[in-house]
Amino acid sequence: MTTIKTIKKRAKAPAHTPALSPIEHLLSLAKADMQAVDAIIRERMQSSVGMIPDLAEHLVGAGGKRLRPLLTIASAHLCGYEGTHHHKLAAAVEFIHSATLLHDDVVDVSAKRRGKKVANLIWGNAPSILVGDFLFARAFTLMVETGSMGALEILATASSVIAEGEVQQLAALRDIEMSEEVYLNIIGAKTAALFSAAAEVSPVLAKSPTKEQKALRDYGRELGIAFQLVDDALDYGGYEIALGKSIGDDFREGKMTLPVIRAYSAAKQNRDESALAFWKRVITDCKQEDVDLEKATALLRKANALDTTLDAARTHSERAINALGCFKESPWKSALTDLALYVVDRVH
Amino acid sequence: MTTIKTIKKRAKAPAHTPALSPIEHLLSLAKADMQAVDAIIRERMQSSVGMIPDLAEHLVGAGGKRLRPLLTIASAHLCGYEGTHHHKLAAAVEFIHSATLLHDDVVDVSAKRRGKKVANLIWGNAPSILVGDFLFARAFTLMVETGSMGALEILATASSVIAEGEVQQLAALRDIEMSEEVYLNIIGAKTAALFSAAAEVSPVLAKSPTKEQKALRDYGRELGIAFQLVDDALDYGGYEIALGKSIGDDFREGKMTLPVIRAYSAAKQNRDESALAFWKRVITDCKQEDVDLEKATALLRKANALDTTLDAARTHSERAINALGCFKESPWKSALTDLALYVVDRVH
Repeated sequence: MTTIKTIKKRAKAPAHTPALSPIEHLLSLAKADMQAVDAIIRERMQSSVGMIPDLAEHLVGAGGKRLRPLLTIASAHLCGYEGTHHHKLAAAVEFIHSATLLHDDVVDVSAKRRGKKVANLIWGNAPSILVGDFLFARAFTLMVETGSMGALEILATASSVIAEGEVQQLAALRDIEMSEEVYLNIIGAKTAALFSAAAEVSPVLAKSPTKEQKALRDYGRELGIAFQLVDDALDYGGYEIALGKSIGDDFREGKMTLPVIRAYSAAKQNRDESALAFWKRVITDCKQEDVDLEKATALLRKANALDTTLDAARTHSERAINALGCFKESPWKSALTDLALYVVDRVH
Repeated sequence: MTTIKTIKKRAKAPAHTPALSPIEHLLSLAKADMQAVDAIIRERMQSSVGMIPDLAEHLVGAGGKRLRPLLTIASAHLCGYEGTHHHKLAAAVEFIHSATLLHDDVVDVSAKRRGKKVANLIWGNAPSILVGDFLFARAFTLMVETGSMGALEILATASSVIAEGEVQQLAALRDIEMSEEVYLNIIGAKTAALFSAAAEVSPVLAKSPTKEQKALRDYGRELGIAFQLVDDALDYGGYEIALGKSIGDDFREGKMTLPVIRAYSAAKQNRDESALAFWKRVITDCKQEDVDLEKATALLRKANALDTTLDAARTHSERAINALGCFKESPWKSALTDLALYVVDRVH
């Protein structure tokens, strides 16, 4: 079993391509595929209604990490898939992701996404909602073209689970008493469900054995949880990285994430009345001043909550890597291992 | 060929069941099916996240006309389909429709829907957006369960066309110079596409001949256009009916519809400077006072714009009925004929 220590070691010195970072290596392996995916994305976001490609280009053209479609591509190769339908499924996955981003930005009242002003602050909420719907529908058209009813089932189910997770998160907004269990349920639905589906559709396409399908479903799920844990830690800055979105968005919305759950729990254990009063004011009552984000970050550091959140992310990253145990060694298995390392290591 | 005159006559005195109105007759024929559809709708809008069934119940439970699923059911019988998958497809059609209504109400800033306060004014915009996404995703899960890739293709395509129509309508808001052609494009996409798909999926399910598939696609499309034309006339009241939504919504949003296009065109022809100035103020500049809806309605009547809009609706209703020519006489053919009559006759 790979330990966290060996994960760290491998991340620093990948054996196969020492000159490239893990993500650069994966992208170089998947380069031709990702170009094909990009071409499909650009072709299928077109419409005679000009506002649609304009708004879609703003989001999709900004690039982003394209982690989810990369996952579909890498999984397809891992399973020895030899057709071209994985390109369409990867594009569909990115469309579903883009649709949820457009809707999230309206729901969350964010200011930035992928380093750019969010679409709804430029075009208004209405086009963001409708273009999200358009991309979502186009995703299903792409899936239909692959003829894989299995892939359709997986991605349709994931889409409803994502929406459930988003609603659950909304209902739990400002709930300072939220448990770690509820938090994990929410990120399992709103984030990990699509990572999991993105990985699982490829063995379905390749008609791989059930155990490989389960392995990639588990891998995607654990990877997604690790990814979201890191994202939630990054919202409180503390690590120098070009996040491409506004720091402190979660805090300002009163969104409960693992770092806050842990800092609040520490304040309870230590009977730190001042800290308890602070969290209730800024989260439950959502009464915040400019300096409060800094104060919150100081409390998170005091409770070691950012580090333990990253430790939790490493545990899930490790589980993701272990899930790949049934596959024999290959450049694609290494690449997926590296991807699991990358989602945690991107904080440095 | 059936003329408008004969349509009117048949609507008043249907030969087969003189005691029932056309829509009551159709509903009685389809009663067992619609109960099955309703059970699926209620089962599939459930979620462990309580806000989802609450909000869905508010909209779906309010009933509405269920015209679109009725169309799927009646079409299935017309084609002699003998399975049960038409229930799932009908429920999927209603879910897609419900999702678009939830999103539309956020986009349109409406106050009422199906005689009730719109969901986003009770729960806020965010849950309406997300529950819409949930219902949309569940619609695709239902379609997957039927195993009909053809039905999936038709409804996925319709869904992206609906979103395109909504965006086009949004882009053309307050455009007093909108042509009838653009208007027909918009309603063809935002409304008729789903009617058309709802009717077309059934012959696909039943593996009927291509000409029957085309016939029902055309029937649905013409029916949808007739339906929207009547809806657009009803927004200016003038006909006593329990609309279940606020009168004058389109007007207040500066939405261009056929009655306004025709009244503005008449004002141009008559060089009626006062009317031209009125339309530019209330539509282009969207500067409106309380009395303006009444003034607008008076101008529509003067230009005979409501009556000619209803005439146009009757023409499309007639085309819908003619599209069924390839089917032999049957209670279901009569029922679909009656449905086409009903969408126009509901104004009385």
